[in-house]
Amino acid sequence: MSFWTGKKVLVTGGLGFTGSNLVHGLVQAGARVTIVDSMLPNYGGNIFNLEPIRDLVEVHTNCITNTERMNELVQGKDFVFHLAGQVDHILSQTDPFIDINFNVTGTAVVLEAIRKFNPKARYIYTGTRGQYGSVTSLPVHEDAPTNPKGIYELTNLTAEKFAMIYHENYGIQSIMLRISNLYGERAQMQHARYGVVNWFIRQVIDGDTIRIFGNGEILRDFLYIGDCVEALMRCAETDAAYGEVFNLGGSRPYSFGQLADTIIEAGGRGKWELAEFSKERKIQEPGDFYPSLEKIRRITGWEPKTDLLDGLKRTFAFYETNKAHYW
Amino acid sequence: MSFWTGKKVLVTGGLGFTGSNLVHGLVQAGARVTIVDSMLPNYGGNIFNLEPIRDLVEVHTNCITNTERMNELVQGKDFVFHLAGQVDHILSQTDPFIDINFNVTGTAVVLEAIRKFNPKARYIYTGTRGQYGSVTSLPVHEDAPTNPKGIYELTNLTAEKFAMIYHENYGIQSIMLRISNLYGERAQMQHARYGVVNWFIRQVIDGDTIRIFGNGEILRDFLYIGDCVEALMRCAETDAAYGEVFNLGGSRPYSFGQLADTIIEAGGRGKWELAEFSKERKIQEPGDFYPSLEKIRRITGWEPKTDLLDGLKRTFAFYETNKAHYW
Repeated sequence: MSFWTGKKVLVTGGLGFTGSNLVHGLVQAGARVTIVDSMLPNYGGNIFNLEPIRDLVEVHTNCITNTERMNELVQGKDFVFHLAGQVDHILSQTDPFIDINFNVTGTAVVLEAIRKFNPKARYIYTGTRGQYGSVTSLPVHEDAPTNPKGIYELTNLTAEKFAMIYHENYGIQSIMLRISNLYGERAQMQHARYGVVNWFIRQVIDGDTIRIFGNGEILRDFLYIGDCVEALMRCAETDAAYGEVFNLGGSRPYSFGQLADTIIEAGGRGKWELAEFSKERKIQEPGDFYPSLEKIRRITGWEPKTDLLDGLKRTFAFYETNKAHYW
Repeated sequence: MSFWTGKKVLVTGGLGFTGSNLVHGLVQAGARVTIVDSMLPNYGGNIFNLEPIRDLVEVHTNCITNTERMNELVQGKDFVFHLAGQVDHILSQTDPFIDINFNVTGTAVVLEAIRKFNPKARYIYTGTRGQYGSVTSLPVHEDAPTNPKGIYELTNLTAEKFAMIYHENYGIQSIMLRISNLYGERAQMQHARYGVVNWFIRQVIDGDTIRIFGNGEILRDFLYIGDCVEALMRCAETDAAYGEVFNLGGSRPYSFGQLADTIIEAGGRGKWELAEFSKERKIQEPGDFYPSLEKIRRITGWEPKTDLLDGLKRTFAFYETNKAHYW
């Protein structure tokens, strides 16, 4: 018997990268999981992400902006992990309305459904470290200014603050996370617009040269998906975490050059080179970033355990076995 | 010849309280003004607000979310003052989607129209001091944390940060204001859900007792609309103001009790009493608030000139003359 045995859990975006890994973790811990995922083309949803637990979960293919469906789906759930969203950092430069629709309106639909039909459900929202924008002191604490550099990041900030308001005003118990660069198994690998680490891994597997934008010295932290799932579950289990915003990231910063070297070591092959930022990427690049994990460690006891080299090796192994489902 | 002579200016929400007063100021200064206002029932739009300059301005009755119309209307303009929005602080507690639609999507429509069809236009956005939420030190400076207590306030913050992103990323020259409690001529007087000062004035004119929620000791600053219009125009004229966020408020704090006393003095009659906050109002009440005006004074030279008693007397005089158009 674990904390999760028999718990009813809704995961929006549950066929995507973070969502599907979370679902694996929850099912393993004994939860009864329901997934909502719109399976939009070019997003992260992939039914293969549920192998081999496909038959153990209930899957609904609809958008989170479908009010009637969401009103039904939140009912009876103990926890709602809201992970669905538009997550392409660059897309909002051509169309900000998609981000507004999925990340703001969609979040409001989920929260209103909970408020009206299941106000005792506990709600966990996953935003991005991009909500901070450029930072003036490192590591970044949760009370640092939030000046997002793009509409994707801004709509995540808005969604986070929506949850804080519903927590404070209506008692919807909510946790708000700002997640760093994730990598690992079950991320989409068809385009370069989501996580940079997985894209570098694809470049190595394909025999291409890793292309690092800028001078290779920008600092970032990288979070292995397995550690992320543990953090999401640990937070949800911790009463004192509700009403709080947490950074969720890797244990230490690496330069992009160090990252590429470690990827090449993990993959046993490959090479990297520097490249110019595209105009679109340069606009939203916030420079050095790594978070303080003091708060999440203090309140939930979680800390990242997976060494970068180990996490990368597992990621290589997964995609080398399952390439057909991701390329 | 003034700075504004012959300048082409678009004012969204131009039939409302702030908008129409701004239009009077701009027309008087020689600008050629175009108004967009949706004239929604129960909002602030009132065609009488344009008397006696109705024939000197071009009025379009459409919503700012009408992309095709907005794409046309921004063209050829030197300045766009974006004042249209959902401004009822309480409404979002029953329906957050209206705020999202007008304040977030609507703002994105205006900014995208400028970006695509007139990127040299200068853009001025008016948000609210409610973007700060509860504050821990007074007076409040522009770099204070922003933790809005309601969806109205949150969607204003999102709209402000939209403008900052368009300024930084696409060079759309933008000014972002956080305005305190406004009062004065041409505000709607049919319901109590907008400005509190004007509503107290109506209570006096109607022979009712002013009802102050709470203990009467909460501190606020109050900004006379004439001073607000001067500030908006002064900011727009000041190159160094672009890319900046400014507080825009009154010169000093008053308690609500002092406010009521001053209203009674200005009106020459009336009385006040304390009342319990409604649940809806209590939720979004941030406590004491007054802004630092150091930044706007330093960069633009503007400061509020109108004494509270004087501003209130002018407001009484306006409504006593024009009551038929506002009651």
